[in-house]
Amino acid sequence: MIAEIIAVGSELLTPFRQDTNSLYLTEQLNSLGVEVGFKTIVGDRLKDIVRVITTALSRADILILSGGLGPTEDDLTREGVAETLGLQLRRDPQIVQAIERRFTEHGWKMSSNNVKQADVISGATVLPNSNGTAPGQWITGQSDGKEKIIVLLPGPPHELKALFESSVVERLRAKVPKQFLATRVLKVTGMGESACDARIAPIYKRFVDVDTTILAGPGEIQLHLRTQAQSSEAADQRLDSLVGKIEDELGDCVYSDNGDSLEQIVSYYLQMRNATLAVAESCTGGLVAERLTSVSGSSRYFLGGAVVYSNALKTEMADVPEDLIDVYGAVSEQVARALAEGIRKRCGSTLGLGITGVAGPTGGTAEKPVGLVFHALASENGTEVVKRQFPGDRARVRWFASQQALDMVRRKVM
Amino acid sequence: MIAEIIAVGSELLTPFRQDTNSLYLTEQLNSLGVEVGFKTIVGDRLKDIVRVITTALSRADILILSGGLGPTEDDLTREGVAETLGLQLRRDPQIVQAIERRFTEHGWKMSSNNVKQADVISGATVLPNSNGTAPGQWITGQSDGKEKIIVLLPGPPHELKALFESSVVERLRAKVPKQFLATRVLKVTGMGESACDARIAPIYKRFVDVDTTILAGPGEIQLHLRTQAQSSEAADQRLDSLVGKIEDELGDCVYSDNGDSLEQIVSYYLQMRNATLAVAESCTGGLVAERLTSVSGSSRYFLGGAVVYSNALKTEMADVPEDLIDVYGAVSEQVARALAEGIRKRCGSTLGLGITGVAGPTGGTAEKPVGLVFHALASENGTEVVKRQFPGDRARVRWFASQQALDMVRRKVM
Repeated sequence: MIAEIIAVGSELLTPFRQDTNSLYLTEQLNSLGVEVGFKTIVGDRLKDIVRVITTALSRADILILSGGLGPTEDDLTREGVAETLGLQLRRDPQIVQAIERRFTEHGWKMSSNNVKQADVISGATVLPNSNGTAPGQWITGQSDGKEKIIVLLPGPPHELKALFESSVVERLRAKVPKQFLATRVLKVTGMGESACDARIAPIYKRFVDVDTTILAGPGEIQLHLRTQAQSSEAADQRLDSLVGKIEDELGDCVYSDNGDSLEQIVSYYLQMRNATLAVAESCTGGLVAERLTSVSGSSRYFLGGAVVYSNALKTEMADVPEDLIDVYGAVSEQVARALAEGIRKRCGSTLGLGITGVAGPTGGTAEKPVGLVFHALASENGTEVVKRQFPGDRARVRWFASQQALDMVRRKVM
Repeated sequence: MIAEIIAVGSELLTPFRQDTNSLYLTEQLNSLGVEVGFKTIVGDRLKDIVRVITTALSRADILILSGGLGPTEDDLTREGVAETLGLQLRRDPQIVQAIERRFTEHGWKMSSNNVKQADVISGATVLPNSNGTAPGQWITGQSDGKEKIIVLLPGPPHELKALFESSVVERLRAKVPKQFLATRVLKVTGMGESACDARIAPIYKRFVDVDTTILAGPGEIQLHLRTQAQSSEAADQRLDSLVGKIEDELGDCVYSDNGDSLEQIVSYYLQMRNATLAVAESCTGGLVAERLTSVSGSSRYFLGGAVVYSNALKTEMADVPEDLIDVYGAVSEQVARALAEGIRKRCGSTLGLGITGVAGPTGGTAEKPVGLVFHALASENGTEVVKRQFPGDRARVRWFASQQALDMVRRKVM
């Protein structure tokens, strides 16, 4: 079966916004064995929406529409689907009540335009939206003698994802031919894309039935593996075999084989070791702390830390001796080491991280150019310092540095 | 005139890769006064490519195709356009020579499939590609009695951009009616989407010649305004007039009218006031510091701060009295206030921010549910505290809280 993903919204036809829901939807559809044949983006004009749906019905079996379910006059997806199928919209009093309740609960005043979100296409199943006011809708019908499935989803990604998982996945699974797919995502750090490919290509090329995609990101490479087989066990076994061979080749450069983020992996290991962490950040400005605390439950191992942008604060918050900064400069191996050791002692943590560098775009010198970062990790066994020279703009340098720092923690406690 | 952008490539129908050329192409087309009506993504199947081009010819005047011009068997854009238009492909000996020369110059060996890139659609103008082997093509023709323009561009962004600028912009300008466009982006915080729309709809609806798009994000609304007029001055004046009326209505809820981020605006005001800032964050875990320091030059006004996840660190780093935490709990107005005042005093900054709350998904209680956040801003005139109850998951609660905190700083120093 072929799916078409249709993103509705004039903002997606501007230079400022891009449809990102389709990546998530594609992943979900693929895992059900459904291929995405087309993606279309259309603006908030009823005539165009009808035209796009008509075209999609002629070439796809499953239409997933996102966006255009909000309360404004521009939100016309419901109207577009109803018009294409020659069906009526009726206002559902239960949904009106649910919307009113949502507003009351949050102490908001509901403006009258919101009731539009309670309009349901005749014959459609309403898909409750626990994260927003506009419910999704599911409607099936015949076109050219074939069954077609049309799903309307809200545009905001967190609403779309929750709704897709709670109400769409199982409905779709019941409609598509049974298939046995397996997928794995390996995450690799500490090597470049071509070096990685050179080492693993001889391995994955022997697995001709596995679809292997290599994606390079800042400070990380992702290997996406996908296969199908006669049973889900057979598919899993096939991928497990390939993953095992790749992990043997790449060793501890592979930090995750289930899609977990580096901060999530660090979280597992720190808890397993009953260890705690504190961080003193200069150039990363809170990014490492932010990544660590993005993991729910991080208070069990992350005590906290200091963002020590000024030199005075490096001394005040992490006990870096003033003369060390005077002699070696704020961006130096010595100050990184002092930050790590100072914050560890101050917070009473098992491990202390210290990061100092030149994020740019200004502030670089011949001796200490933009992209130079010192990362230090202090423990009871002493302190290790890694000096790196990262390429790219401010955001990339900061990301690379956070990646390096978290990877040092991972290797220490793994 | 309406354009359709068609990205060709099966990799763009996977969960891993996204078409990004269309954002650039949209910006270029808009600046010529051409609106993008549709974007379509299609895989490397000839039948599907023909189908997509046929549909596009029925609804758009200008078709911009990217990708599918390479040397492999999967590269079928030339074939697709030729078949749709009922035209032949002929191999151009000059292009063959140019490709051979390119390979020789780089010291590469040319494999025989590369000559495929010299196939030109009958009647097309060849657009030289100075950054790659596959040239672009430009072809015009009639469909339904209207002139249609079809442009074939290579997929790699640096090749596409250079080729578009050198060979397409002026050709298009000669074909489209002379137009003068102006655009503005207003950013609004402190109100919801429907409340905002209810207040400004009566204003922008009087400007029927201005295209107004409202985009809601977490803790922020963007208003995209676009118009065209007889001269660029007239277009600018028209938007300035609308922007003035919207700003009158929304007051200081509008924080930017040129697309600047909230952290950038805070940066301007703090520098203008010669003020400095320090931050003590609990539930946001470094996010506020990270956002502040993402701005280059932030060391001029951001001294640093503390990520005080544990109660002990709240006392150690921001001098929060222990008994305050015992009596009121870590998530309380009193502790937020103490964090703001403590970090301000400790860092010697003009302003101090303190944030404490329940980011979730765990840790909520009936009295202090997930999403409850206290934000405090201390200055020489005292401390203000804002209590909010945010919806959504951990990431959204943290983002909302950072947005609220930065907006308090903005309102204080604006």
